[in-house]
Amino acid sequence: MPGSTYLGKDLIGLEHLDAAQINAILDTAEPFKEISERTIKKVPVLRGKTIVNLFFEPSTRTRISFEFAEKRLSADTVNIASAGSSVQKGEGLVDTARNLEAMRIDMVVIRHSASGAAQFLAERIPSNVINAGDGRHEHPTQALLDLLTIRDQLGRIEGVRVCIVGDILHSRVARSNIWGLTRLGAEVAVCGPRTLIPPEIEALGVQVFPHVEDAIQWADVLNVLRLQLERMETGYIPSLREYNRVFGVTRARIERAPRDLLILHPGPMNRGVEIDSDVADGPHSVILQQVTNGVAVRMAVLYLLAGGAPETAETAKRGVAQ
Amino acid sequence: MPGSTYLGKDLIGLEHLDAAQINAILDTAEPFKEISERTIKKVPVLRGKTIVNLFFEPSTRTRISFEFAEKRLSADTVNIASAGSSVQKGEGLVDTARNLEAMRIDMVVIRHSASGAAQFLAERIPSNVINAGDGRHEHPTQALLDLLTIRDQLGRIEGVRVCIVGDILHSRVARSNIWGLTRLGAEVAVCGPRTLIPPEIEALGVQVFPHVEDAIQWADVLNVLRLQLERMETGYIPSLREYNRVFGVTRARIERAPRDLLILHPGPMNRGVEIDSDVADGPHSVILQQVTNGVAVRMAVLYLLAGGAPETAETAKRGVAQ
Amino acid sequence: MPGSTYLGKDLIGLEHLDAAQINAILDTAEPFKEISERTIKKVPVLRGKTIVNLFFEPSTRTRISFEFAEKRLSADTVNIASAGSSVQKGEGLVDTARNLEAMRIDMVVIRHSASGAAQFLAERIPSNVINAGDGRHEHPTQALLDLLTIRDQLGRIEGVRVCIVGDILHSRVARSNIWGLTRLGAEVAVCGPRTLIPPEIEALGVQVFPHVEDAIQWADVLNVLRLQLERMETGYIPSLREYNRVFGVTRARIERAPRDLLILHPGPMNRGVEIDSDVADGPHSVILQQVTNGVAVRMAVLYLLAGGAPETAETAKRGVAQ
Repeated sequence: MPGSTYLGKDLIGLEHLDAAQINAILDTAEPFKEISERTIKKVPVLRGKTIVNLFFEPSTRTRISFEFAEKRLSADTVNIASAGSSVQKGEGLVDTARNLEAMRIDMVVIRHSASGAAQFLAERIPSNVINAGDGRHEHPTQALLDLLTIRDQLGRIEGVRVCIVGDILHSRVARSNIWGLTRLGAEVAVCGPRTLIPPEIEALGVQVFPHVEDAIQWADVLNVLRLQLERMETGYIPSLREYNRVFGVTRARIERAPRDLLILHPGPMNRGVEIDSDVADGPHSVILQQVTNGVAVRMAVLYLLAGGAPETAETAKRGVAQ
Repeated sequence: MPGSTYLGKDLIGLEHLDAAQINAILDTAEPFKEISERTIKKVPVLRGKTIVNLFFEPSTRTRISFEFAEKRLSADTVNIASAGSSVQKGEGLVDTARNLEAMRIDMVVIRHSASGAAQFLAERIPSNVINAGDGRHEHPTQALLDLLTIRDQLGRIEGVRVCIVGDILHSRVARSNIWGLTRLGAEVAVCGPRTLIPPEIEALGVQVFPHVEDAIQWADVLNVLRLQLERMETGYIPSLREYNRVFGVTRARIERAPRDLLILHPGPMNRGVEIDSDVADGPHSVILQQVTNGVAVRMAVLYLLAGGAPETAETAKRGVAQ
Repeated sequence: MPGSTYLGKDLIGLEHLDAAQINAILDTAEPFKEISERTIKKVPVLRGKTIVNLFFEPSTRTRISFEFAEKRLSADTVNIASAGSSVQKGEGLVDTARNLEAMRIDMVVIRHSASGAAQFLAERIPSNVINAGDGRHEHPTQALLDLLTIRDQLGRIEGVRVCIVGDILHSRVARSNIWGLTRLGAEVAVCGPRTLIPPEIEALGVQVFPHVEDAIQWADVLNVLRLQLERMETGYIPSLREYNRVFGVTRARIERAPRDLLILHPGPMNRGVEIDSDVADGPHSVILQQVTNGVAVRMAVLYLLAGGAPETAETAKRGVAQ
């Protein structure tokens, strides 16, 4: 399978994409949105392509979003979960890669706990590799669906003020968002406990808000991260209740915003911890639209990596699956 | 996906279906039986529909029966097992439901350990929901395949005497059978240890036999339930040997029946406990026909919920899958 | 599904196949190789057939190789892994078999820790059964892909000297290789620790080399087996380092070979134990070609068991999948 003229062979992260490339993905996602609204949700764009979903970390949401994107494009998919498989041990990734290549698969969607695993795989096989989250490094399709949702809602990304709230230090979602947002001209800030903000972050052009109230005064968009509950055990935060008291995105706080805020969350949510239910389910939340856009963005990435072009996506989506 | 004119949007249980609805499912299953006997076991009825099999409890049999039914109707299916998934915790069912809806899936087949989980899900998403077993509540497709098997064998259900033998108290299969059988005019009895018979059962018009010998004298059909082996640990029954001695459906007991008995079992069987092998594999057993009918009944339910009608099923099955 | 005129109903092992049957599979695999090199890797040969991959032992490689072979032939596949399933207990294999039959599946690919499990299943269901490894007995598709790889490289199998190196005693791969190679006229030897060579092996016409250096002097092909690491715990070998020192296939040893050696390994490899990385990845290694051939051989077996013939495979592969 040849590399895309738009993206190259792989999608490892947003750090090395330029604005034109990111916009190409978002523009391609637009016509694909409509496929999921049809009675027959299937076009023959990837018919006869073989895709492996290689998940070394469990992830129901991301895996099924990719799986539906693949099936709606008529690809043949095989799932590999690490539990009980020969791919369990890190040192085997080279051999796993070569074996997949030898089976002549077209694409691999990989999730792995080690930062750099997707890049490592991509360098070793001619198949297209899509990073579905690697350690603390990047989760590019999550950031792309966040960008698409903001663009849908606000009509633009340039000049929009986005604050990412939570555990920035450990978050690949935060990292991919920062690259993608700044590349498209958004103003980006982060907010969270001092222990969970990387010290070098301001060098990326990112503002830091120690207080969530100040972030809310400033922002057009809050992207609220999931708090990994094990952070408490390792001493990063004192308690869930305390975290909610200080950084929780609550209705009371939202109501003091000087303008209409847009609330994003990558899911799954800890309701009552980083976000309260009346915010998650309230009028400012676009959390479910993110999920819907996730399928479209992943279809777009698969389509582009397979050699498609943004300007042919409209035609491709009209194809009749057989 | 619109609700069926026959069944409404969902199939949660048989309690709230009337005889016409149940017969519509059984009549629709008839033409679908033949598809599984073909060389090419596939019709394009659900092409481009996306179905999630959401199994919070493990169940190989029911899951693969649904999966084959879905694939033989050309649907795209994704399996979610609770182990290691974000849906593990009960409180997440609302968010799981909303996420599936946001991905624009057409149908969900759900199995869950909590009674009411299927109804809960059905009320929260526009997709069709099919209950594949919820706690002690209902397992409607199991009862439907039992009904179809009895109708196949005896030519009718009305007036047939069916005794359900075993742990009635904890059994969703028993509950769905009682609703379905009484709705279609069968006479229903139950038989089992006093501790495993719900006290209020006679209010449902169900006769209770304390002795399996008396049940055999009375019945046309025995539906023998699987004994959950953990019942012994929790003190409901003294021992497996004792259970078999008192309630086991054995050849010696069957031979004393005054008429040809039909033997059903939902599987998997504990051979030598609730049923002896020479009964399970004997001339009165229709246990494997139940399994065959299970695929056809599930195809019928999927077809009807997707908007099909019993009178068009014959035409639908002639469609050529592509 | 009728039995193949070439293979009968099942593929349980190579012991009872003759040279014509083995060659029929290898010849049929040839045209199927090309399908995996296409942009659209799919032909409609098994459209509408239902196949169950029934894996009682975990095996990522073999399972996905079969799964891609099945999907590239357009079959509908369902995976059953033993973990958490009703098939967990050995005694249930009869009932599992009958249930699969009752669901009208066409083929079963079975892996099981008990020698004889595949044969046991094959005798009980009319579906085609393919052994994907049963205990210490046979793993026929592995040996077939080894044969195909040797034939590809050397142009013939007759008269070729093949030495299998490692734990012969516990290896179904060794057993299937010995049957297949001797049937096609190869000279076969084994080499490994005395404790891991079955005493009766010379009765099969197999030569034994106690020293790997002597094996390398003699052989055209080394088939290096994976060392199951638990052998060390049970006292069969003193240590991994010692095993590597005495039996490891290293570059130093390979370089002393009097002719070009071909190096095979069924994977997954313990690099630095039974084989060194510079051999595994070196010019003599055909390990990845084995993996590629694995998909083609499995497509050939599926095609033949479904009633195809070697002489029609060329035509079948031209079919356009829909």
